[in-house]
Amino acid sequence: MSSHPTSFGVSLPAWVDDEVRSAGTVLPEVEERMRLAHRLAARNHREGCGGPFAAVVADADTGRIHAAGVNLVLASGLSAMHAEVVALSVAQARLGSWDLSSVGTVELVVNWRPCVMCYGAVMWSGVQLLTIAGEGDEVERLTGFDEGPMRDDWQDQFARRGITVRTDILREQALAVFADYGSRDDVTVYNARRGAGSAA
Amino acid sequence: MSSHPTSFGVSLPAWVDDEVRSAGTVLPEVEERMRLAHRLAARNHREGCGGPFAAVVADADTGRIHAAGVNLVLASGLSAMHAEVVALSVAQARLGSWDLSSVGTVELVVNWRPCVMCYGAVMWSGVQLLTIAGEGDEVERLTGFDEGPMRDDWQDQFARRGITVRTDILREQALAVFADYGSRDDVTVYNARRGAGSAA
Repeated sequence: MSSHPTSFGVSLPAWVDDEVRSAGTVLPEVEERMRLAHRLAARNHREGCGGPFAAVVADADTGRIHAAGVNLVLASGLSAMHAEVVALSVAQARLGSWDLSSVGTVELVVNWRPCVMCYGAVMWSGVQLLTIAGEGDEVERLTGFDEGPMRDDWQDQFARRGITVRTDILREQALAVFADYGSRDDVTVYNARRGAGSAA
Repeated sequence: MSSHPTSFGVSLPAWVDDEVRSAGTVLPEVEERMRLAHRLAARNHREGCGGPFAAVVADADTGRIHAAGVNLVLASGLSAMHAEVVALSVAQARLGSWDLSSVGTVELVVNWRPCVMCYGAVMWSGVQLLTIAGEGDEVERLTGFDEGPMRDDWQDQFARRGITVRTDILREQALAVFADYGSRDDVTVYNARRGAGSAA
């Protein structure tokens, strides 16, 4: 194994920081933060980095942007590099802690309900507020991605761990991004779906 | 944001490769592969890298070890760096694909049932066989870690996506590692548990 890499890493594309800077690094209104997520998601798949998903980590009180992330599965070659994992990891690297609650009340803004992996990633991150554009199977129908099996009580399970969910922020704009992605005939939907009774 | 890091990365501690090399890079018997996972998990918390968890990625047909990973939450400062995410990411970096099914039938060996985040990480990785030492709340009782809310039909949901689960491989040895961890009075249990009705 000595000749093999014993590490992995992920770099945000430069255009992500460009988008954050042009949006402004303090975005007091939740709609501004969600608009940034939509813009990043819409650009991400056109840049070829991964699926149409983006996440923004912000100070929940001031709207200061700690970090942004996009889905980098294709760019990184790593299946775990969904937007939420990327954004939370960059924020934790910047802030110097695996527990974002140590720097204040931190919000994660995502352009749809997280998949089952990212649901857990949010749970362990120290985030205390999750803001999403919406939830529902529209994302799977429009994009072809499998979001995985979520529990019906997923919001209650968050609440028991001190995490509040806020939904339906610029929902229609999220669907427009997914529809744009779904209209392409040249994309890679990278989730595994090999089972005979493949997921809905 | 220009002065802030726009990347993150994780390196395996050198002792992980040492352990793999001394175990042997081809381990045809499942018990050998699980024994390696237990050895890595037992050493990991003593080394101060993170919790007592380890994962091994192997060729399911030959037992050739593609990669090993340990929980690196404390070492990396990143809450998503559970053993499964680390092992799968190192394997994907080595093998050059976000889809491990592209290189054959790949097994992930873990020293207990994955948490909800890692459940999703396995689902999206291209792994087709998950081998675990066991499942049940012993891990939470002995170590204090929260594993998150899993669905009762988690195995069926894997099966629908072409992933087979094999359990109860060297189960008692897993519990011994967790009990050893739990006996320490100097450890950091890093999962968030801030809710009033904190999780079991």
